[in-house]
Amino acid sequence: MKHQRVPPTAVARLPLYLRCLSEAQQQGKQILSSKDLAELAGGNAAQVRKDLSYLGEFGIRGIGYEVDSLIRHISQWLGLTRRHHVAIVGMGRLGSALLGYGGFAEKGFEVAAAFDIDPAKTGKSVSGVVVQDISELERTVRERDIEIGIVATPAPAAQQVTGMLIRSGIRAILNFASVNLEVPGGVNCRQVDLSVELQILCFHLERQRD
Amino acid sequence: MKHQRVPPTAVARLPLYLRCLSEAQQQGKQILSSKDLAELAGGNAAQVRKDLSYLGEFGIRGIGYEVDSLIRHISQWLGLTRRHHVAIVGMGRLGSALLGYGGFAEKGFEVAAAFDIDPAKTGKSVSGVVVQDISELERTVRERDIEIGIVATPAPAAQQVTGMLIRSGIRAILNFASVNLEVPGGVNCRQVDLSVELQILCFHLERQRD
Repeated sequence: MKHQRVPPTAVARLPLYLRCLSEAQQQGKQILSSKDLAELAGGNAAQVRKDLSYLGEFGIRGIGYEVDSLIRHISQWLGLTRRHHVAIVGMGRLGSALLGYGGFAEKGFEVAAAFDIDPAKTGKSVSGVVVQDISELERTVRERDIEIGIVATPAPAAQQVTGMLIRSGIRAILNFASVNLEVPGGVNCRQVDLSVELQILCFHLERQRD
Repeated sequence: MKHQRVPPTAVARLPLYLRCLSEAQQQGKQILSSKDLAELAGGNAAQVRKDLSYLGEFGIRGIGYEVDSLIRHISQWLGLTRRHHVAIVGMGRLGSALLGYGGFAEKGFEVAAAFDIDPAKTGKSVSGVVVQDISELERTVRERDIEIGIVATPAPAAQQVTGMLIRSGIRAILNFASVNLEVPGGVNCRQVDLSVELQILCFHLERQRD
């Protein structure tokens, strides 16, 4: 598989296709056309065909995609056929909520460790995971084969924590802190900034008031 | 202002510029060049100039942008010069965490109401907001001028809740449920799917294993 050649915008749509395909599978559907999939995922059929063409040739012309087969292909392509261990750093409200969020485990992501700097939080169990002191991060990440780090600290601490994650060998970071993280080449960082999402919605509200 | 003409990708970057400008302002900076801003926001200078050109002409050629002035312009453009009332539907772990998330209020978003269907949750105060029964949603949204609805219910309930939000007059929805919501024209919906973010990171991890 030539992962390098898939544009980031297509990569970002693959999980959405996967979700729609899984829903269709649960409804007993065996074949979906690119038009069906586009309607479910909210795009157009040409884009669906183009995105999926990066994964290989397995649509049947004039018929569509076999649902089971396409789910298997996308899952393999995204590396979802094995479980991934995740560490969450920062056990404030958001970090604790993420730790308890059932959705990760369902999708094959196991929160294997949680860290904080506050002695009032460490040593206690949150949703079945004992919160460790941040000083144990590097050792724990290596011991438990943790591949993904979630940064849920206040913004001023986020860059330092990111440095610790990277030094411990982590190459994938999901950042909830409201700050742009600097990461070296070879490390992938995605940001979820909830306020930004609300601000974008506000733009559209204002537009309607014009 | 002609909001219609701004491409969605540019709209999505405006909040990031705003955040970087605010950080620069706190550090006492008065002028930023498009190159400075691009470095802070993680883009290139030409894109910054293009994005900001939609808002009008106020960069000074060869010098840059006045930080205070640009913050004011972007804030106006995004409709952030007034506070917005938000309702959260679904008081599970994620909904409760969002209700307690301090970051919204800082950015001018006030959570004015919270709803659940479970009698064990309604009537109780979570982070200073009394959780109401979902049957009170439509009346409350009108009474409290709520403009933005956050859907934090389990996936099977999300579409029904969205219908209630829209019937009560809401035109902006932030969806955390792992399902594509159908909304009529004139309603803006953005989705934050945390598992999708992790799946995209996985793709890059797999790529490195190739």
